[in-house]
Amino acid sequence: MKNRLKNLRDKLGIKNTDALLISSISNIIYLTGYNGFSNEKREAYLLITKNAQYIFTDSRYSIAIEEKVSDFILLKIGAQKPFLKILEDLIKDENIVSLGIEAKSLTVIEYLAIKKIVKCNPVDSILQEAREKKEEIEINSIKKACDIGDNAFKYILGKINEGISEKEIAYYLENYIRQNGGEPSFRSIVAFEKNAAIPHHLTGDDVLKNKTGQYVLMDFGVKIDNYCSDMTRTIFFGTPSSTQILIYNTVKESQEKAIKLIISNYRQKNNTKINYHKSTMINQKGISASKIDKIARDYIISMNYPSIPHSLGHGIGLDVHEYPSLSPKSKDFIQNGMIFSIEPGIYIPYIGGVRIEDLIAIRNNVPEILTHASKNLTII
Amino acid sequence: MKNRLKNLRDKLGIKNTDALLISSISNIIYLTGYNGFSNEKREAYLLITKNAQYIFTDSRYSIAIEEKVSDFILLKIGAQKPFLKILEDLIKDENIVSLGIEAKSLTVIEYLAIKKIVKCNPVDSILQEAREKKEEIEINSIKKACDIGDNAFKYILGKINEGISEKEIAYYLENYIRQNGGEPSFRSIVAFEKNAAIPHHLTGDDVLKNKTGQYVLMDFGVKIDNYCSDMTRTIFFGTPSSTQILIYNTVKESQEKAIKLIISNYRQKNNTKINYHKSTMINQKGISASKIDKIARDYIISMNYPSIPHSLGHGIGLDVHEYPSLSPKSKDFIQNGMIFSIEPGIYIPYIGGVRIEDLIAIRNNVPEILTHASKNLTII
Repeated sequence: MKNRLKNLRDKLGIKNTDALLISSISNIIYLTGYNGFSNEKREAYLLITKNAQYIFTDSRYSIAIEEKVSDFILLKIGAQKPFLKILEDLIKDENIVSLGIEAKSLTVIEYLAIKKIVKCNPVDSILQEAREKKEEIEINSIKKACDIGDNAFKYILGKINEGISEKEIAYYLENYIRQNGGEPSFRSIVAFEKNAAIPHHLTGDDVLKNKTGQYVLMDFGVKIDNYCSDMTRTIFFGTPSSTQILIYNTVKESQEKAIKLIISNYRQKNNTKINYHKSTMINQKGISASKIDKIARDYIISMNYPSIPHSLGHGIGLDVHEYPSLSPKSKDFIQNGMIFSIEPGIYIPYIGGVRIEDLIAIRNNVPEILTHASKNLTII
Repeated sequence: MKNRLKNLRDKLGIKNTDALLISSISNIIYLTGYNGFSNEKREAYLLITKNAQYIFTDSRYSIAIEEKVSDFILLKIGAQKPFLKILEDLIKDENIVSLGIEAKSLTVIEYLAIKKIVKCNPVDSILQEAREKKEEIEINSIKKACDIGDNAFKYILGKINEGISEKEIAYYLENYIRQNGGEPSFRSIVAFEKNAAIPHHLTGDDVLKNKTGQYVLMDFGVKIDNYCSDMTRTIFFGTPSSTQILIYNTVKESQEKAIKLIISNYRQKNNTKINYHKSTMINQKGISASKIDKIARDYIISMNYPSIPHSLGHGIGLDVHEYPSLSPKSKDFIQNGMIFSIEPGIYIPYIGGVRIEDLIAIRNNVPEILTHASKNLTII
């Protein structure tokens, strides 16, 4: 945590900012390790100045903060001492002229009040960039989450049978995750048949009836030690048609093309230490994320299927969706320490769909697939 | 839903606003009934103009929206058609000069972009006021959630035994809720002994060991049909001391005083149809929420315990925390249709604490307690 604070402070100067107001839950966890605040309501802020760090919260949390976040100075918010008043005093005392804010987290009502006190400067990128490259301890947490996810998938295959509903599968998956020390990192998506054509289908009461090669898409994740995993598998209930098999294999091949591109570029980089910037795909900045998206997307289009109606992948960590973004318009580069999903899909409206999703980490400059559940065509 | 839209439109004029941009998940559910969007990431907006209503989302959701939200015009966001571009075109076409926004939901980054297109006008209160008075169908959903909560509490009493941890109790409670068709409306708080002194304790690995009158505080809720319940009970593991019994009875009495105040004022109102505004507590606006807070708070202080370190209660509905607020500085009035918690507590730092929480509805001008789990001193 101390290194993280130091890194932040190093960047304050670059952004012409005297201090940083942290409001998002995941950044509060990233900097304090404390995850007791609500995700839905603002219950705390951090203020990182050049010389000190403060945590603002109310008396519901003060004992917990004193015990668990001892390297931050606790400033108790209350009816007599509203947040804005304490902030205003600190801004004067510490001579803060420009305050860095999280523009993606702070709401308009907070912003309009704070900017009456001090000049606000959106600096989301500082924490975004810090968090997109994971430390070893973060990679290990995500690996742990992926392992539980892999086992949950194996477990659920034994539960899928005629008469089971989408909601029941989600319940069994999530219950398995909880019993193994995690919690779901997002609301699990379980989609049968035509529902699998909706990439973010809302898991419902549809029931598996006939073994006619029905699409069963399962997209779920695990959160453990505050870190998330994310994986998708699509299986068939009953023998699929040749069309369905072609769709499945096209998605699988599309994903493999993207993964191979990453692996081969890192191999090339590692083999040509001195001249790796001569590679067409990888340079000192890393591999272009949009090019990874493109190779998977183009393959699906070349097979005459509709283009993927979402990005190929996203970074993951304390949040399910972080940077980098692997999408057609992304300007991001894949670099050492990043962990991200590769999740191509083909969706045929009102018929069905297939998505396959794995997480990849670049660890010590070597790509490593973190999810291991089988991707062989699976028929139940 | 149509009535809700009509009510909104009626209020646009009062707020000098031509249209309303809805961004919060709970307001999207309130106006469309669709609850498939993520709570953590912005995936949709609504635009309510004088003559039409639009829903902006991406192709991951478009089939679901076409099927389930057919009275809204779907505007698909994509890489080629970003949200801001579509919004800008609509603002021109519909001649929107002032756009109402949700200042408590919209983020700074969204706001800074939108206000380049159109004048923004925070109008959170329109939906806040609409939602704080519940329709019959909403009251029934919350009652259903409360019933499951009551049963979960009965069930958990049979599970509490030596060796059980806070996390295990939370797991059993939440699993019971899920198996009965609901989901937890928030992360359950289970707090043993000194942890019970932290009003929002983060449920952990502490284990019940000795039957020495340990505090066991359980604060949990159920969400069903998108509506939330919320309840707290504190029981003792082993026979409590006379001090503990006094704390328990003081909290219970404090809650009863608040509830009695509401009931007696409504009785008075209903008995004196014509002159009810002569009552000291209730007038045409309803009962003063701060006065309800005060009677409960003052009683606890009069017994020489520390004042409640949080508000006495809060409205509840699609969100766990809504309006009205029952707190010392609240300007709210309790009116027909409102549903809110009454949850006094006494917290003795590093020792323990007691909180008792029930939900009350004002239904057809009659106060009705929705949570029924026993509040008798319970010893296991």
